[in-house]
Formats: sequence, C-alpha cells, structure tokens
Amino acid sequence: MALNRKQIEEIRAIIKSGQVLTEESDRYSYSFDASFGTYLPDAVVQTKSVEELVALVKLANRELIPLYPRGQSTSLSGGPLPVQGGIVLDLSVMNHILEIDEEDLVAVVSPGVLTAAIHKAAEEKGLLYPPDPSSSHVSTIGGNLAENSGGPRGLKYGVTKDYVIGLEVITPEGELIRTGGRTVKNVTGYDLTKLIVGSEGTLGIITKAILRLLPKPPASETVMITFDSLVDAGRAISRILSSGILPAKMELMDQASIVAVENYEPSNLPIDAEAIILMELDGHPVAIKDEVEKVAALCEAVGARNVRIPKNAVEKADIWRARKLVSPAIVRIKPTKISEDATVPRSKIPDMCARLQEIRKKYNIHLVVFGHAGDGNLHPNIIADKRDKEEMQRVEQAVAEIFTAALELGGTLSGEHGIGTMKAPFMEMELGAVGLDMMKRIKQVWDPNNIMNPGKIFPEPGQKLELT
Amino acid sequence: MALNRKQIEEIRAIIKSGQVLTEESDRYSYSFDASFGTYLPDAVVQTKSVEELVALVKLANRELIPLYPRGQSTSLSGGPLPVQGGIVLDLSVMNHILEIDEEDLVAVVSPGVLTAAIHKAAEEKGLLYPPDPSSSHVSTIGGNLAENSGGPRGLKYGVTKDYVIGLEVITPEGELIRTGGRTVKNVTGYDLTKLIVGSEGTLGIITKAILRLLPKPPASETVMITFDSLVDAGRAISRILSSGILPAKMELMDQASIVAVENYEPSNLPIDAEAIILMELDGHPVAIKDEVEKVAALCEAVGARNVRIPKNAVEKADIWRARKLVSPAIVRIKPTKISEDATVPRSKIPDMCARLQEIRKKYNIHLVVFGHAGDGNLHPNIIADKRDKEEMQRVEQAVAEIFTAALELGGTLSGEHGIGTMKAPFMEMELGAVGLDMMKRIKQVWDPNNIMNPGKIFPEPGQKLELT
Repeated sequence: MALNRKQIEEIRAIIKSGQVLTEESDRYSYSFDASFGTYLPDAVVQTKSVEELVALVKLANRELIPLYPRGQSTSLSGGPLPVQGGIVLDLSVMNHILEIDEEDLVAVVSPGVLTAAIHKAAEEKGLLYPPDPSSSHVSTIGGNLAENSGGPRGLKYGVTKDYVIGLEVITPEGELIRTGGRTVKNVTGYDLTKLIVGSEGTLGIITKAILRLLPKPPASETVMITFDSLVDAGRAISRILSSGILPAKMELMDQASIVAVENYEPSNLPIDAEAIILMELDGHPVAIKDEVEKVAALCEAVGARNVRIPKNAVEKADIWRARKLVSPAIVRIKPTKISEDATVPRSKIPDMCARLQEIRKKYNIHLVVFGHAGDGNLHPNIIADKRDKEEMQRVEQAVAEIFTAALELGGTLSGEHGIGTMKAPFMEMELGAVGLDMMKRIKQVWDPNNIMNPGKIFPEPGQKLELT
Repeated sequence: MALNRKQIEEIRAIIKSGQVLTEESDRYSYSFDASFGTYLPDAVVQTKSVEELVALVKLANRELIPLYPRGQSTSLSGGPLPVQGGIVLDLSVMNHILEIDEEDLVAVVSPGVLTAAIHKAAEEKGLLYPPDPSSSHVSTIGGNLAENSGGPRGLKYGVTKDYVIGLEVITPEGELIRTGGRTVKNVTGYDLTKLIVGSEGTLGIITKAILRLLPKPPASETVMITFDSLVDAGRAISRILSSGILPAKMELMDQASIVAVENYEPSNLPIDAEAIILMELDGHPVAIKDEVEKVAALCEAVGARNVRIPKNAVEKADIWRARKLVSPAIVRIKPTKISEDATVPRSKIPDMCARLQEIRKKYNIHLVVFGHAGDGNLHPNIIADKRDKEEMQRVEQAVAEIFTAALELGGTLSGEHGIGTMKAPFMEMELGAVGLDMMKRIKQVWDPNNIMNPGKIFPEPGQKLELT
C-alpha cells in the first residue's frame, strides 16, 4: 500500500510537535534491521507526544494503515521491518523519561531510552537493572520490551519480562491503557503486562514502562575455564548448576569462536582448546570466594585444562571484551551472519552441541557456537555470503534443521531474539495448530484491523524461510 | 441451571476411571471456599485422566454447562465457587505427578499436588521452590497457579508466576495445548503461560505445570525487631530495603495482631509494642552475619526498642509460628474474618497504615493489620460477626474504602488473593473501562460460551460487594 496525499496531510496535522518523514532518503534508513530483507515504509513518524501517537493510531485504525513501532532496530528476527508498507513509528526519539525511585525500587522509563542508560542510572544509586542483552549499549528499552530480550545474566536473574511490573500502552484502536503498576505483587485480572512484553509490537505501542530494580550485589568475580573437549565443558556446566551455585553469567565459546576472536584481535585466548567457559559470580565477597574455589574443583574433576581468575579489573574487562568480540570477529570470515537462538533445557546442551556438529557436516556450512550455555540458550551462528545462492540454500536447510533439533530435544525456536519474520514459518512446528490459534485469537480481538506490526509472529499460508 | 438426566449419563460415560458425585451431601462440600457465599453445584467430577477431562470439556462447551476447577478451596476471593451451578472439577485428586529434575532445575507437577509437597521434594534434593503462600501446607499447586499466589518470600523471590515456565492446559473448547516448556528462556509467540497463571480458572484447566527451581540457599537467619511506633517500623522497612539488603521475608505485625496471638497462645511477643518486624535473611552464612548486623544498626537508628536474634532452631521456629497464629488468633475475637490484600508501592506503607487507622475509626470496625510489609502487601483483616447485619454493612463500606485508599496511593486491589467474586465489583475502578474491556476480549475469544469458571473476575452489571 501507499499513503495518499490526504492521509499524509492528516498525519502532519496530528504530529504537531514532532516530524513526519516522507523523503525516500529518510525512509530508506527505516527499511531494514539487523536481520534480512529491505522494506520501504511510506512514512516515518517521530514524536515524544503520547497524545499525538494516540490520535495517529486512531487514524491508522480507521484508514487501515499498518504501523511499525521501532527502537534502534538491532532486531535479529525482523521485528521492526515495515513488511506491508505504512508508517514506521520511530520511538527512539521518545527518550525523555528515566526516573529511578530508590524507595519503591523501580525505574520509570520511556521507550526510546537506551538499556545501557538504565543500567548506568540504576548503578549510580547502588541498584541493578539485571537484563543485559548484548546490544544494550545501542538498543532501546522499548525494543527490549517488545522482544522480551534476554542476555547472559538470564541464568541467575531472568529476562526483561521478569522486571516489568507496569506499562502504559496505546491499544491498536488508539486507546491509552495502563497495566500493572508500581507494586511487585498484583493479581488484579489478567496479566496484560506480561502479555504485551514479548508480543513484538503486535498488540500495541508501549509508551512508558515501570521496571523493578534490585540492590546491586556488593562484589563480583570472573572465572575463565579452558577445556580440551566440548563435551567436558558441557558436563562442567551441568555439575556447577547442580552443585548449588548459580552464577550471574555462564558463557560458552567453542573453538571456532575462540579462533575467530584471536584472528580478529588477539585476546590471550587458548586457540588450541575445544571450548572455554566464562563465568561471573556475584554476591557477598566471602560467598564468591567460596564459590570460585568450588567451581575450580568441580571443573578440574571433569577434566578442565586450566582455571584462570583475572588478577585485576583490566584482566577481567579483557575477558568479557573477548566474549563481546565473537560477533564482529566471525563476520570477518564471511560477510553474512545468521544468528540463531534456539534454546534447549540445560541438560540437553551436550546433545545440542552434538546435533550442531552433525548439521555443520551435513550441509557443509561454517557454524560457530557460543552463547549463554548456563540457561541452554546457545547461539549457533552460521557464517555465509548472501551473494552465493547455492550456499544460502544450504544455510536455509541447516537453519530449519537447527530448529527441528532444538524442538526434538524439548527446547524452543527462540530463547531471546523473537519470532518476527524469520521464524514465523516454524511456529506451528513448536506450538501445534491449536496453540498457534489461541495466540492468533488474542491478536484478532485486540487488533481487529491488523494494523499493529502486521506480518510478524504469525506465518502467512505457505510462508517459508528465505534468506536470499 | 441444573443438569438433566441425559447430561449426567453422558458425564458418567465419559468419566470411566474416576467419580461423578451427584448426591446433595457430597455436593454440599463443594459449595463454599474460605470466602463468602454458598453455591451448590449440580455435580462434582473427580478424575486423574486428562483424556476424560478433555471429553468432559467438549461436552460442557457443547451443552453450555459451567465448569469450576477446584483444588483445596482455600481461596479468600471466591475463586472456586460454583456461582452459576454446573460441574465442579475436583482437581485435588490429580496429585499423581511430582518429579524433580535436578539437571534441568525444574519440577513437573500435576495440579492436585500440595504446594508443601513440592517444597519438601525440592529441598530433599538441595533445591528451592520459593513461592510460599501461608496456606501451602493445605493448598494445591493448581490453586496457586490459578490465583498466582504470593507469600512472604515474594519480597526477594517473586510470586508463583515467576516460577512457571510451562503448562499443559485444556482450553474452554476442549483442546489440549502445551505452553512454554522446560527452558527458562522462551520468546516463541505470546506468553500464554503467564496469561493463564493468575487467570483464576477462567481461560482453561491446567493439567500439568513445569516449575523452575533454584539452588537452596546454604543458610538463613531470623531477626525480630520491636517498635514502640508503627510509623518507625515503616521507616525501618524502607531504610533496610534501600540499604542494599533484600531479606527473604519481612513481615509486619501491628499491636492488635500481637495481642490477639498472645491471648490465643502465649508466644513471648511484646504486647505493649506498637509493631514488630519479623525478618528472614538467607544466603551464604558470612553474608547473612554481615546483613544481620547492618539490619540491627539501621533499626536502632530509627528508634527500635529491641532487636532479637533467636539463639537456636526452636526459638526461630517459635517466632515464625507466632506469625502463622495471627489468622486463627484473630477469629477468636469475632467469628467472621474479612482478609484483604490491597497492596501499595513499598514507599507508601506508612501512608497506608495511616489510612487504615482512619478507616478503623470512621466505621468503628475491628481492624487488624499484618502481612508482607516488605513488598507493600499488607493484610488488613476486619473481624466481625456476619449475623450482625448493621456491623456487616459498615464492614462493606470499610472494605470499599480500603480499596480506594490502595488505589489512591498507586496500589492495586489484590496483591495475591485474586479477584474472584469478592473484588469483581471494583475492577473498573483500578483498570478503567478500556483496560477491563481488553481483558474481557481475551476471555470472550478463548471461551465463547463462557463455561470456564463464569461469574469470576468480570463484574456483572451493577454487581456490588455483599458480605451478608
């Protein structure tokens, strides 16, 4: 569809305090995210005004204009792509509210605030906002809310949803509602807060959120453990978790990731090791000291080659920087990266590693495995070149088989990246026809004209994964 | 409505492995819960078979027979009451699955398992299922799931919903679906798990649940702090929480509760004190020791009369037994207890205490205040005699004013007891017409014939609180 002149005039009349972008050069910047495909929107709206957005949604609902809320578009699943044309709502401009309430232990934020800014503001008051997606320095909290973002700390602290206790939302029909509130306990009716968080912008526009904060743990310690065998690393993870220790983070890097990082920027990682585990323990200093000793003993008992504790803050920072380098490092190998987040029950990590090795061989693909091993949320990344159609077809088949493997092991399509356009074709495989239908019913009754982020989550008939 | 003979025959034909109770003496036991009102069901069904329940729901949906899932009926809000006749599903018999998986850190349970049995099974393997409603020794996990039960540990650990990662559910049209799974991270579509938990049996019948477990903290310590002023106690709570300490439990008892307990069963509580705070700290032994010292110093700084640390396990158990005695103790004063759970942001606890004092005077009612002060979830309990109609009218007005006060202070109608029949008349006051309508839409599209626990959560036009 395309907006007609009258509609654009109406939109301009509504968005008095902000901007309406219609030049192709402006719209182009809003046509892609960090996944696949390019879709040009008809217009882009930027405003801080909730009232203006309410009026805009009413217009869009009346005129059947698709709306796509968007933060910084770091989505790996296609969440903000304007696949059916219409208006992109650039909510990154709505970054004017960031209040930390030390007494109620909550943060009140508008959707365009960067997640890292919330981390910083909370820490300045001795508090912690735990969810830490790897993109937190560039992604907005609005995007995190839409996708229910996770991150390394998910193991101990849970994900975005676990910290959202209240929302202000514009419904698809342009009504402003408030869900939840400033209390941690609330059982007044259905939990609309947790329904909307993770609904990928398909049920409304989040204009404000109330987030629960925790006291910041007084200390933390990092441990890096080197293994000659990936299977031993998997066993170590299992042993640690069943020993009563719950690390804040427990990250795995396989040999391919280690080598990629060392080739990209030497970081003192052991390139001859099959795997390393990076762990962060937090809490009381004495408790951590005990736990580090216990972790070392457990890892050595299952055959770890080496347990390394950084001597100072610089060494500590270096270790975590090496982990963050995996993503940029692997795209040096080939330009196209397909980052998956199929997640399995913790106990199935060794099985999933074995399945991934098989898939790598079967389709002759470049597969790198790293991620949040402690909670079963591995990130198998396929490195390819999207100009090579034959290779991309093998990649498409490999991705489908990764999903099948995760589901066969009792896991899920997506641990933290969301469904978007990328995984919609696989939804029924996980949920069954009825499970998917129960979700669709909610979408239909909340958004009868299907204007809120259409084309996401729910597959079109016959839709298939297409990376080319 | 009443079931006809043909319907009862059909039900008996479906429930082959279980029982169908139709004698009035049997049905009477299912006509009440721990709230108000008596409603005789037409039949009661007991079966462990999910297949039989599926067939029964299909029949009920076709014949428009109301269904009421029920556990042990400790509900304080009317959740399981068969208010429109029909069939009570006695799920307390479905208690045959209780598996603890130490590797995945999950429990798999059927709905009739007692919550205390899950606590015990987890602890035997060094694990913790944190949610601990006061009724846990008699309530089923199915009831806890339906109502999203809280409890003292909510302060540090959250509520039931925070530990549910997967469900097996029979939809109101008799389809069996599975939501979530065994992974902690899952963002595949809408979060039906968290929508169904807390929906009070109005969206389907939970037949199995997967619960997340934590490693059991290695140690815990109890502290009892005595205050000459309730306001000082409120200030102490605030200071402790903003000092970086997050106790596992932080319970308040006002003078009326203290006196009631001492009259009921002497427990060594200071009857001349205006308030006591009971606290449990858990974690690493050294960390706890530090925290206890810090708590003592903070409380003394705001004017605490006394800080007591029990010398041994017996003294510790006695303190928590005294807290549990509040409920039975206060009904000695008068036979009818109206237990509220209006919840306010933590910082508003002193304001809420003041409002409650005003309400007590204004309506000349017997009001006792205790509860989970750390998370703003006070339990104002009104003690009355339901045979005294004049008194009960004052109580009805006082209850309505308690809700108004909680909402004016930015709180919620219900922190953990649920809406049921008791609070339905007040829903719009908190949610607004549109917020309530968005909930109703989900109910209507999931349960088009309104057979699942009708008459709960959503008020009938003109419905008012009636305690007489």
